[in-house]
Formats: sequence, structure tokens, C-alpha cells
Amino acid sequence: MANGLISQFNPKPSFLTRPTHQSLRPSTRYGPNITAMDQNQSYWASIESDVQTYLQRAITIRPPESVFEPMHQLTFAAPRTTASALCVAACELFGGDRSQAMAAASAVHLIHAAAWIHEHIPLTDRPKPRPSIEHKFGPNIELLTGDGIIPFGLELLAKPMGPEQAQNPDKILRVIMEISRAAGSQGVVDGQFHELGVDELGNDYEIIEYVAKKKEGELHACGAACGAILGGGAEEEVEKLRKFGMYLGMVKFILGRKKPGMEENLERLKGLAVKELESFQGKKIELISRLVELEPSLETA
Amino acid sequence: MANGLISQFNPKPSFLTRPTHQSLRPSTRYGPNITAMDQNQSYWASIESDVQTYLQRAITIRPPESVFEPMHQLTFAAPRTTASALCVAACELFGGDRSQAMAAASAVHLIHAAAWIHEHIPLTDRPKPRPSIEHKFGPNIELLTGDGIIPFGLELLAKPMGPEQAQNPDKILRVIMEISRAAGSQGVVDGQFHELGVDELGNDYEIIEYVAKKKEGELHACGAACGAILGGGAEEEVEKLRKFGMYLGMVKFILGRKKPGMEENLERLKGLAVKELESFQGKKIELISRLVELEPSLETA
Repeated sequence: MANGLISQFNPKPSFLTRPTHQSLRPSTRYGPNITAMDQNQSYWASIESDVQTYLQRAITIRPPESVFEPMHQLTFAAPRTTASALCVAACELFGGDRSQAMAAASAVHLIHAAAWIHEHIPLTDRPKPRPSIEHKFGPNIELLTGDGIIPFGLELLAKPMGPEQAQNPDKILRVIMEISRAAGSQGVVDGQFHELGVDELGNDYEIIEYVAKKKEGELHACGAACGAILGGGAEEEVEKLRKFGMYLGMVKFILGRKKPGMEENLERLKGLAVKELESFQGKKIELISRLVELEPSLETA
Repeated sequence: MANGLISQFNPKPSFLTRPTHQSLRPSTRYGPNITAMDQNQSYWASIESDVQTYLQRAITIRPPESVFEPMHQLTFAAPRTTASALCVAACELFGGDRSQAMAAASAVHLIHAAAWIHEHIPLTDRPKPRPSIEHKFGPNIELLTGDGIIPFGLELLAKPMGPEQAQNPDKILRVIMEISRAAGSQGVVDGQFHELGVDELGNDYEIIEYVAKKKEGELHACGAACGAILGGGAEEEVEKLRKFGMYLGMVKFILGRKKPGMEENLERLKGLAVKELESFQGKKIELISRLVELEPSLETA
């Protein structure tokens, strides 16, 4: 198949590749420059690398291979999501240690990967599956793998994998609830239901924003909130990060879809996102707020 | 379609319907009689009814209807599993209140229902889906509904729905881990992977027992262990209930499949199941141990 997505890890998520002229364009609002952008890139790259290492340790290819081989391959074939990275960054923002957010960030990736895997399964009522992914394992295995990694993500949270997890169980329970909700019928799945008709809807911005909110918005909101909870943010701070994540996810979804005529919606959502972070200060918050200007992961389209 | 499974609730799970002459046959080992059997039936019927009421309260048809209507219908169309009932009974066995096990028993049902829904989806590499279920919503919606109810089940555990959930968060985390594991790649999903070839395998008892263990065994083991944990059983007691559940689930799977020539395997597994309960005493344990003699839920086949 064209890009061999399944046969190897995505070496680098596209939101980490060198930004195009568009995202390097000086912006009076956020004023990025090349140096800040480089620093930005290396911060996100280090988070991505740590999440990947954690997931590789968690999902080794072990018996039964018929289960763990497709699980391993599809987990890493799925595009990364900024929602995982945001989870780690939000934890660090409040002084939490990066290791405290690893299970949550990985669970967020697995929820996102499960949705991606299931969206590409050839079903009998979806005669033309989305293009350009290789179906190495066949639809049945893809179905089962998607089913298997959702609870696996939650298991990572509930089950201590190392000393880093000796955390307050109330916090962990809250994070499990956040992640279950974002993954389930009130989050990603709701978005997928409504997305079924979006390609035919053309430019109905209201529906597009609804799907954007449910599919990417709630996942990013969840990632940000979980990170803030684990890092020790106060309630009010958790809610601000959550809202930032919601707007950021919507921006990423709309950019990824390349829907024409949504420039105004995008500017409004970016503005709302950055506004949520106004009361915070410091270098970390600058890095986080610049996420709205980074290229979206193109594969989420 | 023939039995209209989807269009209405299953009024009664088949393991609660009047037993056939076979399960009423006097057994020197367990010695059931009609009166004991009636008492047995009413105990399980009251548990089933309570779990159903809890699930109906949790999964009301509410906006977005496109999500909750199929979720509601498919949740109740799926056959019941003795694993849910066993969860409640194990909790009561150790003096726990029935309400303490409701979320866990419901999560067990949802895991089972998700597997059932996904097994009946018409996929392009599975040209002939299993017979006799009506596909009211189409494969895409069935796919999404199965995806949505797995995290929903875990959310029920993590999120207090009423005062009955004011439980030790360490216990709840342990239960979430148990349920995630049984649902995921080391439990039901592993069983499904291996089951793909079972119909062609004829009488390879070793594989059939492996699938039985992973698919129904681990789900029942999980239900029993979760109930015992929530009810306050000691570690050793939790493990005995877990093993009982494992053998019971295997028995149910094999009976449901009607594989010929497995009578010896069945008798061995039933004996192993009952042996795990030897050190317990009282009326409740008799009721639980008689589960191995009740008719299996035929729809799980």
C-alpha cells in the first residue's frame, strides 16, 4: 500500500515535523520566532518519545502473539494525537513529575488509536473504507484489536506498572472516569456517530463544530484535565486546562479536515483557547499555548 | 428476523427458564431437588431483575438519541451472562450489600454485550454473519455501540451514581483492573481471536478449552472475583471464587456450543468448579455451586 503505515512505526508525528511557512508566519498575537519554535519542537518531541517508550514497554509482542502482534503494530501505526502530549505537559505545568502522567497519556493514545482502527475497518455497509491504510490483519482482527486496546488503556491506569504509579487512588479513579467518558458514548463515539454524515454535509459549520468538539475536542479536553489533575492543579485550573484542550482539539480537527470557508471559525476557536490560559504564567504555558499554531497531525483527517 | 432479538428485551435469560429434564436429573454429587431448584431460580431471577433495573437507570434513551437509542436497545438485546449474576452472588456471599456489586455486575454485562454485538457485525471478510439477529441499526452503528459501552461500563464503576458507591477507592480500582483485563487482550478478546478458527477445528478439545477459558471462563472468573472483593472476601476466598468462576464459565461455553464428545471434559470441569467451594458453608454457597447444573444461556452460542 501507498504509505506502509501499518508496517512500521510512524517515525515522527506530523505535528513535530518542521513547521511550514504558514505556522512560522509571524503572528502578532503569539509572536513565535524560529528559536522559540525550535524549543517548542524539542519539548513536544521529548514528550512524544517518552510516551512511545512507555507504550512499547507496556505492549510488547508476547504470547499470545495472535493478539499482541496486531495490538502492537496497530497501536504504533495509528497517528499520534496532541491530546497525549497535552496530558503530559499539563501535569508538568503544575509541578507534577512526567512519569505520573505516562499511563494517562498512553490511555489517551489508545482511545484515539482504537477509534482510528475501527474507522478504517471495511464493513459491509461502508463499501469504501477510508483510503491509504494497509489492512495487514484483515477487518476481523482490526475489530478485535480496537476492542482490546480500550480496556488495556484503562488497565494501565488501574494497575501499577512501576513505582511512578503510587498515586492517590482518588486521583486515579477521577482520571479513569475522565478517560472512559471521553472515549465512550458522550465523547469520541458520539463524534463518530455524527461524523457519519459530515462528508455529505458540505459546509454546515454547526455540525462540523459539533463533531470537532466530540471527536477531538473532548479527547484533548480529557488529556489536559487528566494531566492537570495528576499534576496537582486546583479545580479552577483543571477546568481552564480542560477548556483550552476542548478548543485546541476542535482547531486540530478542523485543520485536519481542510474544510474550506472555516477560517473565521478557526480564528475564533484559537482565540478562545488562548484566552483560557491568560491567568497562567511562565515558559511552560507559552509552550502549551503555542500548540494552537502547530501543524495538526495530518493523519487524523 | 426469526426471533426479533433486537426489537425487545429478552424477557428472561435462558439460564432462568425452567430447567429441562437433563438438569433436573438427580445428581449424586449435588443432589438438587425440585424445591431447591425453585429457590435457586428465584434467587437468580431477583439478581437478574436488579441488574436490569440498574442498567435501565444508567442507560436511559436521552440526547444524543442517535447514540443512546442503539446503546439501550443493543445492551438489552444481548443475552444475559451468568457472570453478572455470579458477581452479585459472590458479593452477598461475603456479607456485602447487593447494591455494592451493581456497577460491577453491570460492567460485566456490558463487556459481554459489546463482545456479542461485535461478533455479529457483518464484516467484509466475514461474509456470513452469525445467524438470527436483526441488524436494525446497520454494522457501522453496531461497531460504534460496542465501542461505546465498554468504557461506559468502566465509567459506571469509577463514577458514583448513588450513595451505594461510597466504597473504598482501592477496591474500586482493583475491580476496574479486573474488568479491564477480562474484557481486553488477555481475556474475551484473546478468546475471540482464537475462536475465529474453532468452527473449523472440529474436535480439538485443547483449543476448545482454551477458547472456553478465555471467552467465558475469564469473564465469569472476573465477575466472581469482583463480587468477592467488593463483598469483603479475604484474598484466599477471592481466589477460590475466581477459580470457581473460571470453571463455571468454561462449562457454560462448552454446553452452549454443543460440541459432541466433550462429556468427559464437562464432568471434569464441573467437578473442579465445585471443589473450589468445598471450604465454604451455608445456603448461599449451595445456590452458587448449583450454577454448574443450570442450563446455559443458549444465546451465547
